[in-house]
Amino acid sequence: MSMIDNFSSRIRNLHPSPIREVLSAATRPGMISFAGGLPSPESFPHFDLDIPPGQLQYGPTEGDPDLRRHIARDLQRISLNVDPEQILVISGSQQGLDLVAKLFIDPGSRVAVESPTYLAALQVFRFYGARFVPFSANRPDPLPAFGPLAFLYAIPTFQNPTGWCYSTEEREKLAHFCERHGIVLFEDDPYRDLVYDPCETAPICARLRKTSWIYQGSFSKSLAPGLRLGFLAASPDLVPYLVRLKQAADLHSNRVGQWLVLKSLEHPGRQKRLETLRALYRQKRDHFSFLLEKHFSSLATWEIPQGGLFFWLKLTDPVDTRKHLQQSLDQGVAFMPGEPFYPEPEIRIGSIRLNFSHASGEEADRGLATLADLFRKQTVFSHQ
Amino acid sequence: MSMIDNFSSRIRNLHPSPIREVLSAATRPGMISFAGGLPSPESFPHFDLDIPPGQLQYGPTEGDPDLRRHIARDLQRISLNVDPEQILVISGSQQGLDLVAKLFIDPGSRVAVESPTYLAALQVFRFYGARFVPFSANRPDPLPAFGPLAFLYAIPTFQNPTGWCYSTEEREKLAHFCERHGIVLFEDDPYRDLVYDPCETAPICARLRKTSWIYQGSFSKSLAPGLRLGFLAASPDLVPYLVRLKQAADLHSNRVGQWLVLKSLEHPGRQKRLETLRALYRQKRDHFSFLLEKHFSSLATWEIPQGGLFFWLKLTDPVDTRKHLQQSLDQGVAFMPGEPFYPEPEIRIGSIRLNFSHASGEEADRGLATLADLFRKQTVFSHQ
Repeated sequence: MSMIDNFSSRIRNLHPSPIREVLSAATRPGMISFAGGLPSPESFPHFDLDIPPGQLQYGPTEGDPDLRRHIARDLQRISLNVDPEQILVISGSQQGLDLVAKLFIDPGSRVAVESPTYLAALQVFRFYGARFVPFSANRPDPLPAFGPLAFLYAIPTFQNPTGWCYSTEEREKLAHFCERHGIVLFEDDPYRDLVYDPCETAPICARLRKTSWIYQGSFSKSLAPGLRLGFLAASPDLVPYLVRLKQAADLHSNRVGQWLVLKSLEHPGRQKRLETLRALYRQKRDHFSFLLEKHFSSLATWEIPQGGLFFWLKLTDPVDTRKHLQQSLDQGVAFMPGEPFYPEPEIRIGSIRLNFSHASGEEADRGLATLADLFRKQTVFSHQ
Repeated sequence: MSMIDNFSSRIRNLHPSPIREVLSAATRPGMISFAGGLPSPESFPHFDLDIPPGQLQYGPTEGDPDLRRHIARDLQRISLNVDPEQILVISGSQQGLDLVAKLFIDPGSRVAVESPTYLAALQVFRFYGARFVPFSANRPDPLPAFGPLAFLYAIPTFQNPTGWCYSTEEREKLAHFCERHGIVLFEDDPYRDLVYDPCETAPICARLRKTSWIYQGSFSKSLAPGLRLGFLAASPDLVPYLVRLKQAADLHSNRVGQWLVLKSLEHPGRQKRLETLRALYRQKRDHFSFLLEKHFSSLATWEIPQGGLFFWLKLTDPVDTRKHLQQSLDQGVAFMPGEPFYPEPEIRIGSIRLNFSHASGEEADRGLATLADLFRKQTVFSHQ
């Protein structure tokens, strides 16, 4: 008997992660990486702090009470009216995906997702046995025909990978749709602080009155991913279950990190720091946009994202970009193939996700030139 | 339709945790707690450190490379010959339980466990659908009659809750048994640094040559639980699966904590700090032992643990101790009922687990007096 026969049946749905492999290659010295959603190191705060010994003891599963109060207050300001009791501090957004999947997904459960959507969410949901029903923010109406849904997963603000931001009308429409059909909404909102142009960013969950919901935020993008901290807010009916699942997963999230996050949130310079961060990323986005025009104008189309960390390029001559990743890595440039972001990757080829927050201006110029060259040769080749 | 109909079927196996409820009550001001396995706050290191900004970025799923090397070296010293590539840094031992359960347990899978054993392990395994087959270290031989096992879970060194430490012969016997039957061994070893008397502590996994294994350690007991860090070591066939499961659970463990752990492990005063910690806990154990003689000699029997954090008391007149917890909490004393540590709690009544590392000497005296009084009245009452 091989070891694999001993594994649980869900391991059949556990595949090596494309993110993991690309990111691992992306850390090689000299590599220019457009692959991950890595914040710029310039954006990190300086922590030189005397950690209170009390923070080294076991703590509550739900998270530090002061931190939960602060998060609830911040959410109230963006019209999501929650009590601190509805807040659960989690070990990064990835844990939120795992907890919500554990709560709702049985083998064969249907989950409605944007197409494309965050590939690590697809992976976790698939691991628990989900089948996907793609929906469009503009036309959710065909969804009920597919039968009951475990939940609907959406990233309405600077969507990953596309960078799209739902309009006020689209938010209203989706909220109304979930209410009418009693669909649980799982709203993932890691990029909300990274806004560069005026646009609607109010959570869709704030519009819900009857149906259950989970709203997820992260401290990875606006503070520091190495702390591995985020939070869930949820309708009161779901909170006790999520807390128990969290406890079974890791008892509670690391307290030193929670304490550092709280200090950052309470810091009088917080708004100023966020403005500086947005100015830094806005400038990086604009420069990246300029470089894309320079190198990719004949090769792909894209929209300029109003926030977040990514450009989403659709190749004019679609090829399966996964097949060109290795060659690109060999030439010192990491990018994220677009195909795995689709629930049905085989029939949705020809897009790439490019992160603009990490590489320097000079690196971005050089890396995009290399990448454009690679896809240009490919195009010429495919036309021969 | 109620929300509960929407949940996954595994949520039926998700029960409120007795640990969680007791620990929550145990934090009330003035409460004397014998309930949790809380390290003494006097034992915590002083962290006043300038966190390198590099530690704030995303990091590798497997953990910090230097930390993995250090852990592997430490394990080699206790005769567990592992490469750093076999080490996975995790978010506390609880996460290890979740990852291993995900890897092996399907609904109905059989897991061999000591009886009693760590109740949070029972909870997580049960959540994924495990059925339990109790075994005794001295007589594992009847196990194969129950059919194939997903794995065997054991805490051979200062077992939780009993404090037992397997002898050399018992370790050899269990290793031989797992080898002969091809049973996967999951060895949980959070207390190994907390040794107060000479005894055998070599990992059983170090004796395995053919069968697959997972060895789990923790930085909660010897360093600081608030960091929420531990590690898994595993046979090479299991490592890639555990890494993928870890990535899907939380990408990687918090890096600031990993950096603090590495600094502590590398600190030239580490051995001295561990000796001081052991001396502190040895003295606390001895004083607690003296107090147990004073208050409980007519009410219960126990053995003096050679390490770890707990005394395990068997009541001379067995009662279901869960029924007396609330009264004890009302009187300001938290303890952990022994019943939930058994796979079959209903037929194994009449034991309690008492933590000796957290309460001060004076608190322990007062708390044990209260607790003894409560059980004495109960005994008199049950004899009337």
